[in-house]
Amino acid sequence: MNRAVLLLTFLASAPSIEAAQPQPNFVIIFCDDLGYGDLGCFGHPTIRTPHLDRMAAEGMKFTQFYSGAEVCTPSRAALLTGRLPPRNGMCSNRQRVLFPGSQGGLPGSEITLAENLKENGYATACIGKWHLGHLPAYLPTMHGFDEFFGLPYSNDMDRVPGAPAGRAAFNSPSSDYWNVPLMRNEEIIERPADQTTLTNRYTEEAIRFIRARRASPFFLYMAHTMPHVPLFRSQEFKGESRRGLYGDVVEEIDHSVGRILAELRENGLDDNTLVIFTSDNGPWLTFDQQSGSAGLLREGKGSTWEGGMREPMIAWWPGRIEAGTTTAELASTMDLFATCCSLAEAQVPEDRPMDSFDLSPVLLEAGASPRENFFYYRGFELMAVRWGPWKAHFLTQAGYGQPQPERHDPPFLFNLEIDPAEKFDVSKNHADVLTNIRNLVEDHRSNFHPAPSQLEH
Amino acid sequence: MNRAVLLLTFLASAPSIEAAQPQPNFVIIFCDDLGYGDLGCFGHPTIRTPHLDRMAAEGMKFTQFYSGAEVCTPSRAALLTGRLPPRNGMCSNRQRVLFPGSQGGLPGSEITLAENLKENGYATACIGKWHLGHLPAYLPTMHGFDEFFGLPYSNDMDRVPGAPAGRAAFNSPSSDYWNVPLMRNEEIIERPADQTTLTNRYTEEAIRFIRARRASPFFLYMAHTMPHVPLFRSQEFKGESRRGLYGDVVEEIDHSVGRILAELRENGLDDNTLVIFTSDNGPWLTFDQQSGSAGLLREGKGSTWEGGMREPMIAWWPGRIEAGTTTAELASTMDLFATCCSLAEAQVPEDRPMDSFDLSPVLLEAGASPRENFFYYRGFELMAVRWGPWKAHFLTQAGYGQPQPERHDPPFLFNLEIDPAEKFDVSKNHADVLTNIRNLVEDHRSNFHPAPSQLEH
Repeated sequence: MNRAVLLLTFLASAPSIEAAQPQPNFVIIFCDDLGYGDLGCFGHPTIRTPHLDRMAAEGMKFTQFYSGAEVCTPSRAALLTGRLPPRNGMCSNRQRVLFPGSQGGLPGSEITLAENLKENGYATACIGKWHLGHLPAYLPTMHGFDEFFGLPYSNDMDRVPGAPAGRAAFNSPSSDYWNVPLMRNEEIIERPADQTTLTNRYTEEAIRFIRARRASPFFLYMAHTMPHVPLFRSQEFKGESRRGLYGDVVEEIDHSVGRILAELRENGLDDNTLVIFTSDNGPWLTFDQQSGSAGLLREGKGSTWEGGMREPMIAWWPGRIEAGTTTAELASTMDLFATCCSLAEAQVPEDRPMDSFDLSPVLLEAGASPRENFFYYRGFELMAVRWGPWKAHFLTQAGYGQPQPERHDPPFLFNLEIDPAEKFDVSKNHADVLTNIRNLVEDHRSNFHPAPSQLEH
Repeated sequence: MNRAVLLLTFLASAPSIEAAQPQPNFVIIFCDDLGYGDLGCFGHPTIRTPHLDRMAAEGMKFTQFYSGAEVCTPSRAALLTGRLPPRNGMCSNRQRVLFPGSQGGLPGSEITLAENLKENGYATACIGKWHLGHLPAYLPTMHGFDEFFGLPYSNDMDRVPGAPAGRAAFNSPSSDYWNVPLMRNEEIIERPADQTTLTNRYTEEAIRFIRARRASPFFLYMAHTMPHVPLFRSQEFKGESRRGLYGDVVEEIDHSVGRILAELRENGLDDNTLVIFTSDNGPWLTFDQQSGSAGLLREGKGSTWEGGMREPMIAWWPGRIEAGTTTAELASTMDLFATCCSLAEAQVPEDRPMDSFDLSPVLLEAGASPRENFFYYRGFELMAVRWGPWKAHFLTQAGYGQPQPERHDPPFLFNLEIDPAEKFDVSKNHADVLTNIRNLVEDHRSNFHPAPSQLEH
């Protein structure tokens, strides 16, 4: 190495003389059962989402972004821990999610993103739906959140005796039909929760939190109850959407996103806040016209076909993320853990296997994703594996229409980038790809130690 | 009426003192077999269309925009005449389109948009695929176009003896497999046309025309041969798209659109040119991975389900159309006739029934569409009718998979704004809507005089 090269090497590794960036704020807006195709900027023809469309125009749209699971509880556990649900027991092959009678929850030994950021000086809030355990030991305030305002579980749970039976309750829903509690921190403050006001009250709480914590770095996890059935929206949005009730509900969420972004701008926080908008799983297709749409993707909630786990995702950070960009890089809600930690200069836990990749090269440099694979679990069952553009289905099961999974040997194989709708099985022509994926599975399994299910307690 | 009101009335009706606007230019970019879901801004996950996305961000996206027919020839006749294909005989229940052996074409008695604009001082060009009659009497130069550069019919016609049979020819296509002529005006200048260069040569011709005619008002009808199979793209786009061959082809069209818009900007014509981007019919689904995608819509080319006739549409006119808007107003390619005439202050023919509505209130004021209905013809058969959000199917037939249409009585009824995927037949609950639609059909038929088929000659 000559002197000139040595000098360049020295300069490149010299500490930056720029002022240290302050730790950025993080806002994760997480919907419930929103489909891949339910936003204007993801192709829906009649749901108007001007605020989300603008968020995308000012930020980055991800088109191959996955939730950690195909239903609610495991998906939320995956996002907050950066780990596949079987690792922390937040899944089950029988009880798909936690119910009001469940005794389990996210184990205290798990480290949530909130907990990790809090240790690094962040103010933290969980506003909206929790669904990771409603007994005292499992509430958000036990898992790194300074505050909690919202529902402990889904809004369709605990139907009261005397409420209309079956689907009738959903067709013209009333908050009184479900005995769902609204909580602040560890206290129930309203029961049944008035569901017509939830989206608006969550928004007000989020704005209050942003204003109160604007001086400190903060992490806001805003997990909407909607558009999970029963569908409710405030008076202001009633009958507003061409898409009917479901559209009204999504348009109110869109309005809420607009208010949050405006609040960040008004507080001068827009250039120091990463906002992520996505959903927990695909649309619940069995609810007919009250179901969302997975767009061109196959199937919906409850299934490991793409419609069950691929989500619309928009990332926004004016000045840091290039405006109006779209990326097809592979990414997952689980990656938000490593990404936020990297941006906050916080350590990712090293004492446990993580399933989280730092997406900051994708966000900040439109670079390649460090994620090369994705494992599609349904409960404790590894159903399918994505490797680059390829997806092999070892097992398939429709969301809520098929009682038993069907095994495929050879596995179904799709090239998802050419065939995102999973129509053309090409396993016969790509034995080499299947061999690679089988090796990947073997490797994955050799290091994989599932925890006992928390959902079967 | 008191004096103040009289004065206001007088002022409101006084002639404008602004300088007269010059006649705007029109560019219609028309794809072949592009699906509703094939652009980034219409939700495709892996086809990159940055230029079309930008065009949408600077213009208006239409999400309920229909071609005049479900296959090529009638769809083009509808666009250029502003009339339903059975009115001018450019359809058939047996021969779906014109073939190289056909003797018919668009009758000379029809008035095309080009002819009408030419009479009003416009320079006119048809660049790309014609498909309205290839015999001398029917060529573009006989129908109001000053010039023509392109193919007289589809790029998959006239396969040469010795070329691979069946689908094999499409899987690794060569221009030599089809004896398709490339024409300039009335002359064949190349046969077989080198299809790998078509998108690029059309673009070059369009740019040449814009430069040559920048001083006069002009109408450019640019009808791409692609992405109709066989799929060809230039060397520059080979292997570029994650979506494979089909994606390469669409991405080359996107690049072409970017060049056209840049050319308009560079010539200072962007504030005086309305550009429309759309397609002739839905994706040809029988070509597997070489087919486009209708997104969330049902079926494709050849069918009167939504996927066959609803098209992606983007309208662009900086300074006149509000940037970044989306409209779900009902509109059709047939409306481009009345719209362009209105903007050019040209008369719409009054001696014949027209099926064309002036969309300028939608474009310029984000107003309501004057179109309230849409009639879905397949050949001479009225298959379905849209009335506001409702669509009644009297007959259905899959694009190319079903030999005979199936009749429905009562008709299938869908609310397309709530259920764009046409999944939930609600005919049982909406007898009143069906009555209205039946009255509409009766009224339509009482005034409808189909012409003899030009496609069966």
